Amino acid sequence: MQWYMVALLLTVLTSSQGILTTLSQSNGRYEYDYATVPFLAEVFKLLVSSMFLWKESQKSPPPKMTTDWRTVRLYPIPSIIYLIHNNVQFATLTYVDTSTYQIMGNLKIVTTGILFRLVLKRKLSNLQWMAIVLLAVGTTTSQVKGCGEASCESLLSSPIEGYMLGILSACLSALAGIYTEFLMKKNNDSLYWQNVQLYTFGSIFNMARLVVDDFRGGFENGPWWQRIFNGYSITTWMVVINLGSTGLLVSWLMKYADNIVKVYSTSMAMLLTTVLSVHLFNFRPTLQLFLGIIVCMMSLHMYFAPPQMLVDLPSPSLKSDPESLAEASSDRRSDS
Amino acid sequence: MQWYMVALLLTVLTSSQGILTTLSQSNGRYEYDYATVPFLAEVFKLLVSSMFLWKESQKSPPPKMTTDWRTVRLYPIPSIIYLIHNNVQFATLTYVDTSTYQIMGNLKIVTTGILFRLVLKRKLSNLQWMAIVLLAVGTTTSQVKGCGEASCESLLSSPIEGYMLGILSACLSALAGIYTEFLMKKNNDSLYWQNVQLYTFGSIFNMARLVVDDFRGGFENGPWWQRIFNGYSITTWMVVINLGSTGLLVSWLMKYADNIVKVYSTSMAMLLTTVLSVHLFNFRPTLQLFLGIIVCMMSLHMYFAPPQMLVDLPSPSLKSDPESLAEASSDRRSDS
Repeated sequence: MQWYMVALLLTVLTSSQGILTTLSQSNGRYEYDYATVPFLAEVFKLLVSSMFLWKESQKSPPPKMTTDWRTVRLYPIPSIIYLIHNNVQFATLTYVDTSTYQIMGNLKIVTTGILFRLVLKRKLSNLQWMAIVLLAVGTTTSQVKGCGEASCESLLSSPIEGYMLGILSACLSALAGIYTEFLMKKNNDSLYWQNVQLYTFGSIFNMARLVVDDFRGGFENGPWWQRIFNGYSITTWMVVINLGSTGLLVSWLMKYADNIVKVYSTSMAMLLTTVLSVHLFNFRPTLQLFLGIIVCMMSLHMYFAPPQMLVDLPSPSLKSDPESLAEASSDRRSDS
Repeated sequence: MQWYMVALLLTVLTSSQGILTTLSQSNGRYEYDYATVPFLAEVFKLLVSSMFLWKESQKSPPPKMTTDWRTVRLYPIPSIIYLIHNNVQFATLTYVDTSTYQIMGNLKIVTTGILFRLVLKRKLSNLQWMAIVLLAVGTTTSQVKGCGEASCESLLSSPIEGYMLGILSACLSALAGIYTEFLMKKNNDSLYWQNVQLYTFGSIFNMARLVVDDFRGGFENGPWWQRIFNGYSITTWMVVINLGSTGLLVSWLMKYADNIVKVYSTSMAMLLTTVLSVHLFNFRPTLQLFLGIIVCMMSLHMYFAPPQMLVDLPSPSLKSDPESLAEASSDRRSDS
């Protein structure tokens, strides 16, 4: 499978996730406990990956599986980073409102680029750096509140702690992605074996969250396993399956493509969701949505198009590069 | 003089133009007849250019001057285009409000690019086209009204005639610029001689406008030459000198650089004016101003930076282009 087909599928599914989540609400609120969704999605991913691993193990050669403790112990780390991230996110939201938080979320695009360079040591051209900045600017532009909408006064007037936590949140979110990419590419283990490890820890951490919620709530509604499917509708199950599927696609991209592809995919999904919301939920399209989409499309083209498609390269016969000229003259000298 | 120094000076002076014009008002209105300003600016440009032409004619070789009627008759054309443009602008404003008109004005950036390609036959790389679109998107973004500001409802709700006229206006404005560039580069006549011709017709057309205004007003305030300096302050004179100076710089750019340089220069001036207004007139800076500035800066870099600074070019030893490979092998064949 080609990476851009996976990226396209991820865009469509991530976009449906927003729409499905909205559709799963009744009268603007959830009839079910939303915290059960990521847990069930982790279990779904674990089941699917286990099945594929089992199928792979029937064939020869058998899947490559490192079971050394020094490798296995790295797999809970993404879950731990996400756990810290969730808490930072919660703290941020005590200082800033959700729309400011959403705007700051676009910083993740830039922090992913920076960690991609610093941690994974991947080189990006100047044009690709500019494309990443433009992607963040484009998604932010599309989210700028239109006139008459409330709560825009707050954007530049939150306490400084809110902005600092927002930046920390963007760094943690990027770090989780970069770390997962590092983990998936660290060795050539079977993708399904790597997934099984990731999602086992993922399921455990999500289950722990449900238990903690139970203790916090004083077991008012009984333990989590008794009320896990309360209020579930077909749409809720679709939200679970969809979230699980996007997780599996992201995992594939981390191994066979990279974080930047994922960032483009999810940013495009955000725009697609907004455009679909205009039709489905009668959102008012704004000029800034249109402008943001143009900027993101330009960014996409700048990042992924081959350089010779973007710039007129100097013709090879006219080497203006002094180094290659020096080389050519030294060649001639050695010829004579 | 380097073109980018002239472009920088044009940016600073164009930006001051907005500030000076605002400062020349008393209590939010003009004490003087604003129509006299462009007329006096044309006269100023004519005087300055005549002086430089006279100085040039004292030296040897004398300035190159084509006085053939077939060339001279082309010089009123920019004035005629501007005259039509002014009337279209007036008609547009009967359909759309000023803030929609201002937003549509950014279309001029794109129409200039298109006419630059179609009329002047100048080639632009894909990246340069993208940069031009981004410049228009960036300036538009910076002008998006913040929340709470009035008259944003009207943006997508004007009658279709308004948008058609807005597009026509953008085309005419671009055409005037492109035609002037064609005229200035048509032959290697002295810049000052070309200016003298341009501004003679410019002065005549602007004078005609004052006369027409007099007839329309029924000579209520007397003929224009009796009231031309009424209400003039030092600041008004600075507005005149500034407008004249920007005209002279644009003329220089048309001959020695091009329309795209001018478009970047004036777009940057617009952003600079907005930033200065934040300080001088206590404008509220918006997030979209900040985003627009980033997009315009990226666009500037994309358009003018040398390609090898933007992309990692394939090393010359690895010629993957099949055509150059074919050439190389045919060279070898003819050698043997």
